[in-house]
Formats: sequence, structure tokens, C-alpha cells
Amino acid sequence: MVTAAEELGPVPDLWKRRHLLALEDLSAEEISLIFDKAEVFKRAMAAGQRKIPVVTGKTCVNLFFENSTRTRNSFSLAARRLGADTVDFSASTSSLSKGETFIDTAKNIEAMGIDLVVVRHHTPGAPQLLAQNLNCGVINAGDGPHEHPTQGLLDILTIRQRCGRVAGLTVALVGDIAHSRTARSNIWGLKKLGAHVIVCGPSTLVSPRWAELGVEYSYSLDDILPRVDVLNLLRIQFERQTTRPFPSVREYAHLYAMDRQRLAKTKPDILILAPGPINRGVEVTPDVADGPHSAILEQVTNGVAVRMAVLWLILGERAPVK
Amino acid sequence: MVTAAEELGPVPDLWKRRHLLALEDLSAEEISLIFDKAEVFKRAMAAGQRKIPVVTGKTCVNLFFENSTRTRNSFSLAARRLGADTVDFSASTSSLSKGETFIDTAKNIEAMGIDLVVVRHHTPGAPQLLAQNLNCGVINAGDGPHEHPTQGLLDILTIRQRCGRVAGLTVALVGDIAHSRTARSNIWGLKKLGAHVIVCGPSTLVSPRWAELGVEYSYSLDDILPRVDVLNLLRIQFERQTTRPFPSVREYAHLYAMDRQRLAKTKPDILILAPGPINRGVEVTPDVADGPHSAILEQVTNGVAVRMAVLWLILGERAPVK
Amino acid sequence: MVTAAEELGPVPDLWKRRHLLALEDLSAEEISLIFDKAEVFKRAMAAGQRKIPVVTGKTCVNLFFENSTRTRNSFSLAARRLGADTVDFSASTSSLSKGETFIDTAKNIEAMGIDLVVVRHHTPGAPQLLAQNLNCGVINAGDGPHEHPTQGLLDILTIRQRCGRVAGLTVALVGDIAHSRTARSNIWGLKKLGAHVIVCGPSTLVSPRWAELGVEYSYSLDDILPRVDVLNLLRIQFERQTTRPFPSVREYAHLYAMDRQRLAKTKPDILILAPGPINRGVEVTPDVADGPHSAILEQVTNGVAVRMAVLWLILGERAPVK
Repeated sequence: MVTAAEELGPVPDLWKRRHLLALEDLSAEEISLIFDKAEVFKRAMAAGQRKIPVVTGKTCVNLFFENSTRTRNSFSLAARRLGADTVDFSASTSSLSKGETFIDTAKNIEAMGIDLVVVRHHTPGAPQLLAQNLNCGVINAGDGPHEHPTQGLLDILTIRQRCGRVAGLTVALVGDIAHSRTARSNIWGLKKLGAHVIVCGPSTLVSPRWAELGVEYSYSLDDILPRVDVLNLLRIQFERQTTRPFPSVREYAHLYAMDRQRLAKTKPDILILAPGPINRGVEVTPDVADGPHSAILEQVTNGVAVRMAVLWLILGERAPVK
Repeated sequence: MVTAAEELGPVPDLWKRRHLLALEDLSAEEISLIFDKAEVFKRAMAAGQRKIPVVTGKTCVNLFFENSTRTRNSFSLAARRLGADTVDFSASTSSLSKGETFIDTAKNIEAMGIDLVVVRHHTPGAPQLLAQNLNCGVINAGDGPHEHPTQGLLDILTIRQRCGRVAGLTVALVGDIAHSRTARSNIWGLKKLGAHVIVCGPSTLVSPRWAELGVEYSYSLDDILPRVDVLNLLRIQFERQTTRPFPSVREYAHLYAMDRQRLAKTKPDILILAPGPINRGVEVTPDVADGPHSAILEQVTNGVAVRMAVLWLILGERAPVK
Repeated sequence: MVTAAEELGPVPDLWKRRHLLALEDLSAEEISLIFDKAEVFKRAMAAGQRKIPVVTGKTCVNLFFENSTRTRNSFSLAARRLGADTVDFSASTSSLSKGETFIDTAKNIEAMGIDLVVVRHHTPGAPQLLAQNLNCGVINAGDGPHEHPTQGLLDILTIRQRCGRVAGLTVALVGDIAHSRTARSNIWGLKKLGAHVIVCGPSTLVSPRWAELGVEYSYSLDDILPRVDVLNLLRIQFERQTTRPFPSVREYAHLYAMDRQRLAKTKPDILILAPGPINRGVEVTPDVADGPHSAILEQVTNGVAVRMAVLWLILGERAPVK
């Protein structure tokens, strides 16, 4: 039997990055490479091969300035399954509260002999700033409303697996577009792979200026339903909103919740994604969330696989230069 | 030398469970099996064999909705000594605060490729609900006042080790019976193994209806002292009480604290247990807690051994079907 | 190639301690031994040898009663690179909030099969108390204003590496001497190795009674600047001060901040240390902190190496008795 490590081989020459900061930066070839390798990891995991020690001994730090047990643990599990060690630095208990700067905190962590920092920060560009100041690798795990590249990757990988392709599909991102880094990462990744993207939501959360990114926009989910292949139902991020973008949750759900009635108006093989945590009854009703069109839990499984692929591409061994 | 892994052999056919939810569910044979295997692990640990990698590569999640560093770490240490990986999800930082349901949180965790969830929850039945909804194993680490099976197991294992048997012994559970999941797990386990159980405490914490579970009840520790073989001094759980069940701590200690005077009235070889953390001077005085009759720290050591046994029984390799 | 494990050999007979509580206790020979071994670990790490499994299977507990992600992670990384397992107990979530005593908490942790406790506590002497009551090893990671021996060691190791020696040097500790355990550990270590020590800061933070420890004291940084070989700029610990020791931060920085003007008055090869986290613009200006005289990040790297050395000396295998 070929082990996952053998199937992977060395890190291909195509991958030259030490950081993953934004899907905006990546080429279609790089995204497809991540997907191909993620599938190797996913198959190995499904076959019960729990440890694939291709980055043994490396140390990854989770440097999270916003709470996220789930994303943090997804990265940790990915790292450990590759044989790496993980350490958590959280903002609340770190030295930032003692007056230290962001860069000093990160440089101190790096000086402990760290190979890679997974950073989540409320400020757009914070991971970029780290990448410029550290010698170790940096992965953006969400920087404010800017990007969340591994979330975009896991969404699009799920589309590729379920639909067999990405190019030519019409994908609607529905909901809280204004506050969503997931929307931005999806848009960049989907467009690079040749999908047509619609952003859809109330006008308070979807601006006509999104057209500047080369996407269609719509205020009516019912209007676009018949022609979409994939619906990605973004969570209403109540915690990020400073104004009330709609009169009530009931009003929002009335217009945008994906329920049985709306499902009946879609293409028969529609794929429904939702980056968790989902608000049942707000962006999606329970019967749809748990129904056959939903790939919500597959997204989570793909999340670990995508993160394993990215960690390996950044930290894994490259072929010797000939 | 025979290694612990060799001594264990495959998981016996007697054990067919994927979950440990309550001692109420277990047969005497299953409980004895856990004890026998826990003693293999305990001996191996005492002999300096720190890693017994019989569930290598499996991942256990601690999903704790109530704080408990100690129980959580006892499970983590047990898992890691078996070669498993551990990840902590705590309620305060998890997505539940973002509106996600309990089941969705658990299913998301499972989708990351998890083999077993150790859950503590304030609601009785929460682990049962998880077991019905997840494909992975579930261990109840305490569900409200209902059960805390591994605590019951470690208490009873300590009795078996110190007294040489459980059947025929008279065991008194003293104190906050009303709020104690430990009491319930002890009662089920002790009765299945043939012990006589007395629950003892102030009438506000001990109801006559406990007799329905087949146990004797008493409001006077002094009355029962001369005829008990084992005293299990339950902690007064101030944090769970919504009414004041006794006038003062001093009043409680006057009637129920195990001190030198009371010790003089017991059988000479009385065994004294107390599931930590103990309130010194409330349920037990320091001289008794630190004296030769006390097995308080042995309980802690047995806790790790019992958890190793349960984790192995659920996750370990079974004999091939002939 | 000689591996780090081979280069280390067994733990030398000179090292007889099971605890590291204070640099006041150590001999010059013991300190030099720690440094020599730390340098073996540092070289191995720099050469990419990430795992040096010389204490495999041992379990170290971080028992922190004061928050410190950085020190805790430095110990954790050190332990794991030696092959040990680590577990965190933090005070806020531990059973102390349920009325348990400090010693009971520690004994309970030890009973889980722990080999070493790394303790940080706000009370001077707390690690000593643990060492008297536990059978496992104890390392003081800071006890109130008393000592923080591994911080002292990493500071002095950095001096030894940069200056080639410690004996005969003049080292000034500048700043918040009154509240600084780092100052005390530095003083003991530096004096044992033959350095001359000056403590310098405002009179509210530097008492003439420091002379009783055999050090010089000064209220003027400008006065002592021309004759010091090493400056160790201690952080103003705003969080420990109960009175205002100086009129304003600006006033403090005016008199004690190490800036370009002051740098011009020093010896040309002055070495500048600062145990992080640093307050840029308070005890040191950015140009000096990031300049060639600063060894701030080397201190962090040496911190991991020193902790590896101490953990190995306490937990590693000794030569068989002949």
C-alpha cells in the first residue's frame, strides 16, 4: 500500500510561498495544488491513517486575537496529524495587556524556535505585517473583514468535490457580505477558478460597489435561486455589526433563510454550504441544514484536510535542487 | 518482561460499548473488567512505564461546559499515556456563544475526525443526547446532578484495592447527596457489586425517597459510624445550592465532619474516601484527611488508571472475529 | 555526527537537585553547568534538531497562579522538545476557587503521576512550600517579588555568550528593582559568577538597603552609564505597583529610558538586555531595542535552551552508580 507520505512526494516546485495571506494572491494552479494535496490527506484520514508525519518536529503557534476554538483546533489537529507540535498564544492572557506591541509579541514567539504562526486578528493586514517582520511562515486565519483564506479554500474544495468542477458554476454568497472575510476569500478563489459569483443580501449588507470585484450583486434571493448551482449561506455576524442592518431577525429570515419552499425553486442538484457556526432558523432552516443538499459537515472535514495541505506546502520538504 | 500492552491483550468480547454514560447501565462484570484493566495500567505506571501506546493516533476531545481543570487533565493524561491526542473545547470560548446548538457544536467537532468526546454538561442527559447523535464514542464526565461514572469507578476501585472486595461491605455516602452526581454513580456501582449503601446527611440534602434506589438513609453520622466499612465524604457543593440547606458551615461540620472523635467510634480498619477538592474542616478535618485511613490521593491516581481503562476499552483494538 | 543526546551524556554527579527554587541556592559551578548544557541544546536547535528526546515520557505540569502565556509556553516548548508531555493548570479554573488549599491542589496534581511542577505564584516562598510537600520536582517560574531563577539564568547566559565571560563585568539592573524577582535572581547569579552589580532607578524603587545584598545602588543612570558593560532594563511593572513611584511615565523615561543620546555615552561594546515584554519608549526607545547592542530576542531563544537544560538536569538519566 502506498502511504500518504509517499503519495505526496516532495513539495512541488510550483509552490514557492512561505506564507498564506490571501486567496487574492494565489494563482488558479496554486489553489488546485492545495486541493489535490488536501484530497490525499483526506483519503488517508478516511482510511484510518491518523498520523502522516511529514513535518515532524516543526512547531506551529496559534496566535489568536479573536476567540475561535473551532478554527484554532482545526489548525491544531491538522498540524499534529502531520507530526508537528502546537502552542496556543491567546491575546487575553498574552503580554499585549502589559503594553507590548503586536510585532514584539510575534518576534518573541518566533525567537522561541517557531516555524509557523497561524494568526487571527481583528485588523485587516495584520498577517501581512507579521509576514514582513518574521522569518517564519505565516498563515492568515482571518484578519478582520478582509480574508480568511483557508475558509475560502475549504468551501471551494467542497464545491469541487460535490460538483466535480468549479469552472462555469454559478455560486451565490448569501447574507452578511459586508462583514464577511469568508465572502472575500470565496470571491477571489471562485473567480480564479472560473466560477460566476453573485453576492446576495439586504442592501445594508450588500453594496453595488461589490461589482468592482467582478461579481454580480442582488438584493433578492428568490430572484437568483433558479440559476445558482451553489449557495453559500454566510452567518449573520451579530457580534461584528455596529448598526442594525435589518429590522429583525424574523424579517431577515423571511427574505433570506434557505428553507423547504425556497429549496423547491432551485436546480434539483443544488449544493448548500454554510461556514459554521450556523444560526438555525436564521440563514438556514433545520430541515435544509440536515438535508441531502447540505455539505455543512463535509466542509468541516475538508477544513482539516485543506489546513494539512497548506501546512505541508509551507513546512514540508522540497525536492533537492538538481 | 511482559509489557502492559501484552498483558492487556485485545479488548475482550464482554465489552461491547462505544460509550460510558452511566454506571446504572453497566453490569457487575463490565465494572470488574474496567477495574482489572485499570490495575494493569496502574501497575505499569507505577513501574515507570509512562507510555502504553494502545490507542495511538486516536483523538479525544474534552468538551466541557463546566470548568474542571482536574477532571479534564485526568482524562487528558490518561489519553496521552495511551498514545492518543487530546484537544480541549471549552464552552466559554466556543461557538455556542455565537448561537450554535449543542448538537451542532458536537457534530462539527466530530467532523474534524475525532474518535471520542469526553463531555461535562450541567444538564442531565446531555451525554446521552450526544451518544445518540454522534458516531464517535462518548464518555460522560459529569452531567448535572445525574452521574459521573468515572468518579464512581475510581471510588469503588479504591475500595476494592484497600478492602480486597466490595461485596458485603457497608459504604456510607455522607453529605450533599441531593446535588451529587458522584453519589448516584457510587450507588449504582456499589449496589451492582453487592455492597450495602447508606446515604447520610442533613434532611435538607437527603430525602427518604433515596430508599427507592435501594439504599438506606440516615440523618445521623454518629448513629451509623460503628457499622460502616467505608465512608465516602462528598464535598458540600456550595456552587450548586440555590437554597441554604443548613444554618451554617460550622453547624454542618459539627454534625457531619469526620474528625478524630468520630474516627474513634468507627471500625478499626475504616476506609475514608473523599472525591476532591476537599473543604478541610467542613466534611473532614486535616488530621483525618492526612491520616492512615484516608485514601484521598490514591483516588486521584486510580482516576487516571480507570480513565485509561475506559478509553482503551472504547478505542482499543478488538480481537479479530473468528 | 554526534547527536545532542550523545553530547549531553548522563546528568553529571555535580547536579544533585530535584528542584530549582532560587539562584541564591546555586553554586557558581551549578550555574555554569546549566549554561554549558543550555548551549548544547541551543546549538542542536539551531542545527535543526528539533526533538532531543532525553526525558521521554515524563510529564511536566505548569501550575500558574499568575497569567504568563510566554513563560508558560517557553517551559512547555522546552519540555516537549525533550520528549516530555505537558499539562496546564491555571488558578482561575482550578479547584482553588472551590475552597481547596494550595498544597492539596498540588498533591492532587502530583497523584496523577506527574514528574515535575513548574509553579508561578504571587506569594514568595510558594515554590519552596511545594518542594517540601511533594515528591516530584519543582521549578520556580516566579514567586511574587522574590525570584525567577530561569529568567536570571537566561539573562546571564546571554551576557556570557555576548561578552565571552561574566566575571569582572559591571552589570547595571535599571528600573523597577523593588517589584522585580528578575532583579533578585540576576543579582544572586551575577555575584556568584563574579560580576559587579549596580541597581539603578528612582529612589522610590531602589532602596539603599539593596547594598546589604552586596550590590552598588544608584539613582542616576547617566552617572553610571560610562562604566557599565551590560545594562539590563527591567520592565516597569505597572500591574504590581500599589502606589505611584514616579510622577509620570514621561518623567521616568526622561531619566531612565535607554535612548540614542544615552547610548553615545556608554562603552562602545555595551550589551543591552531587557526581559520582555518591553514598554517601547518607557525603559528603552525603539532604535536602541532594535539596534546592534540589544540582545532582547536572543534572551528569548536562550530562555528555551536554559529551561531545556534545567528540565534535563532534574529529570534526565544519571550515570549508573559504580
